[in-house]
Amino acid sequence: MQTLDDVQGVPFIDLADRFGTPLYVYDSAVLTATYRRLRAALNPGLELLYSLKANPNVSVCAVLGSLGAGAEVSSVTELMTARRAGIPADRILFLGPGKGAAEHRMCLDEGVGAVVVESLAEMRLLDELARSRGTVAPVVLRVNPAFTVKGARLTMGGRPRQFGIDEMELMDRPGLLRDHPGLRIRGVHVYLGTRILDEALVVENTTRILDLAVRLAARLGFPLELVDVGGGLGVAYFDGERDLDVDTLAAGLNPVLAAFRADHPATRLIMELGRYLSADAGIYVSRVLYTKTSMGARFAVLDGGTHHHMAAVGIGSYVKRNFPIRKLGPDAGDHQPWQLAGPLCTPNDLLGKNVPLPELRSGDLVGVLRSGAYGPTASPVRFLSHGYPAEVLVHEGQPYLVRERERPEDLLDSQRLAPVVAPVAG
Amino acid sequence: MQTLDDVQGVPFIDLADRFGTPLYVYDSAVLTATYRRLRAALNPGLELLYSLKANPNVSVCAVLGSLGAGAEVSSVTELMTARRAGIPADRILFLGPGKGAAEHRMCLDEGVGAVVVESLAEMRLLDELARSRGTVAPVVLRVNPAFTVKGARLTMGGRPRQFGIDEMELMDRPGLLRDHPGLRIRGVHVYLGTRILDEALVVENTTRILDLAVRLAARLGFPLELVDVGGGLGVAYFDGERDLDVDTLAAGLNPVLAAFRADHPATRLIMELGRYLSADAGIYVSRVLYTKTSMGARFAVLDGGTHHHMAAVGIGSYVKRNFPIRKLGPDAGDHQPWQLAGPLCTPNDLLGKNVPLPELRSGDLVGVLRSGAYGPTASPVRFLSHGYPAEVLVHEGQPYLVRERERPEDLLDSQRLAPVVAPVAG
Repeated sequence: MQTLDDVQGVPFIDLADRFGTPLYVYDSAVLTATYRRLRAALNPGLELLYSLKANPNVSVCAVLGSLGAGAEVSSVTELMTARRAGIPADRILFLGPGKGAAEHRMCLDEGVGAVVVESLAEMRLLDELARSRGTVAPVVLRVNPAFTVKGARLTMGGRPRQFGIDEMELMDRPGLLRDHPGLRIRGVHVYLGTRILDEALVVENTTRILDLAVRLAARLGFPLELVDVGGGLGVAYFDGERDLDVDTLAAGLNPVLAAFRADHPATRLIMELGRYLSADAGIYVSRVLYTKTSMGARFAVLDGGTHHHMAAVGIGSYVKRNFPIRKLGPDAGDHQPWQLAGPLCTPNDLLGKNVPLPELRSGDLVGVLRSGAYGPTASPVRFLSHGYPAEVLVHEGQPYLVRERERPEDLLDSQRLAPVVAPVAG
Repeated sequence: MQTLDDVQGVPFIDLADRFGTPLYVYDSAVLTATYRRLRAALNPGLELLYSLKANPNVSVCAVLGSLGAGAEVSSVTELMTARRAGIPADRILFLGPGKGAAEHRMCLDEGVGAVVVESLAEMRLLDELARSRGTVAPVVLRVNPAFTVKGARLTMGGRPRQFGIDEMELMDRPGLLRDHPGLRIRGVHVYLGTRILDEALVVENTTRILDLAVRLAARLGFPLELVDVGGGLGVAYFDGERDLDVDTLAAGLNPVLAAFRADHPATRLIMELGRYLSADAGIYVSRVLYTKTSMGARFAVLDGGTHHHMAAVGIGSYVKRNFPIRKLGPDAGDHQPWQLAGPLCTPNDLLGKNVPLPELRSGDLVGVLRSGAYGPTASPVRFLSHGYPAEVLVHEGQPYLVRERERPEDLLDSQRLAPVVAPVAG
């Protein structure tokens, strides 16, 4: 196994010494290569949006934005992040079932490409707001389709969901446009699943979504300006998984896209990608504090743990499966199974179990690879009051601190001591 | 079912209007009653420490401190919190497998009661530090016992663990004291499990831990100044669970404690309690944004979700079980099953599934009860960049904001935009 020493020539040991550990390191060259490979392979008419939920760091977002990605956001902060990262408002879609008046106002203020509405009740709220402001809000209908497609890790269609409006309910409302004069319905959004690693499934999802969008637009009588076919493209984390093959994907998907565009030349086609674009670009770096043996098992206790990387806990599978994990820097071989424990007070705080690694010593660095998506923002970073780790982006051979580590003062300053102790009589 | 309108006479609707939603509300009267009931029932010689990991809010900690609780902490921030809350340093124990030099220095600076050491490597590090400072560090040995006790939700003993030093390894090191002149070994800590709801199991654990401590002190030759018997007392969350009965617990435990104290009058006895003390005092309050029906199922989309209350996801059990959940304020009866969804973009973001509730409307408040332990600090609060919720303590009929809600600026200001976009030539 090749040693893993550096990012773009910057040694991990220098990053750890300069920025401290634990630390997330993002590699802009990997972000760029992943985006460009997919962009070059797929029909150029398919627009790619970056889903900020995977990794909302403003600099990660800016790298993808500079390459041409739009953005898919789901909160006020994500919208502000995408704008700060330089992504034009009209290339941003705002979706999510929990948008309230504040989110709607900001969408109109910023002029986002569309609000993806997730319920009839949300449509009424946004319609009223737009009319009260004398404007028309661009919306996309999120549809909960009547069909489901097997093979994703979490399927979305064909069952009761908080997302979108049931296909049958929309088909039964031919007066939908007339009832919402404050909305301009631009298109249809469907999201069918997540962590998909089967190219044929992406093709099948896309085919069915395009068909549904055309039927729905005809039924409700709106010009189909855009179709967002969701995404859900996965990456391989565990033994036995393999990455999507971009050429196979393109060979299946491009004819479907080309045929649709031939029939609907004025309709924009959009795909959302979060994990797929960011996962491989991130490494979670932590340092060995101690090694120990317990009842014959080798443990390395690290300064980082699952409070920063909850996905590594492996909850949801019956057997814990390890992310790819490497000792950073010299690797003397003779790999033995190691238990990689974090600083939390729960036996579940294991970044890896029986990970084959060389002899570890206090001070060594360990990296959890493919950690650029659903990392610290998807983890309980304040557990035991540890706080958010630092994040560094390496770009063109230079490291940039792109998020500061939370310090004890940061965690304490937001708190206030109530007068719970009676004053001493004096 | 009785309506749940207020905390100490302060209506939930007033709290929601004044502090916004979603919101954690803590009731000092419940904290106080829980502590006092246990304190009154158990042998007065048993000292009670509050485990901050359950809820590190400084005001929650201060309420318990004002009642006489010491503290068990596991990070620099938790130690600072306990001190700000007014808990004397010598009533604080610092434990956890991931303590480094910074944590050790702070323990010595503050003069904590003891550092609970979790490995031989940590003992060496602390020994060197203490000697370099010309002092002696008070330590407690955390032991990974050779036995295990069944019945806890997560057992700790009898298997390889990152916690503590194997019993067998300690028994084989009669020179341990002599080899660490910078350490004064004050006693023994053992933690056998969590979420225990069986009184007899607590008694059995305590009995075996006291026996182990006496054997170990004799073998290694240190005066047994204290024994920390851990804790792990649970609360009932789900159907079919029942709370520990304090009288039954006391009837079993007090004779064991009394017998030990008769034999070892100079030895302090300590129990740690986190969840048990804080869980029942907290309610997570969120507001209904929309209601909808999807394929026959009733959904309420709330402004709060599992990013603030990950325990409600129910991960780890095969079937999702609901925390106790109530509509706050008037309850018209005619309960029907509701799906309580949050604002996240995952179908797992359900605070409750098929929860029997009255008709819900936009603006209604919903409370998840028994949420005072392992709430926001144990949850991915930055998922979708939503941020930490506000926390309010109600004390003597007055509400106090005890932690400010994170705003978009807070999440953005810690980030920096790297120069990833080439400057336009000009």
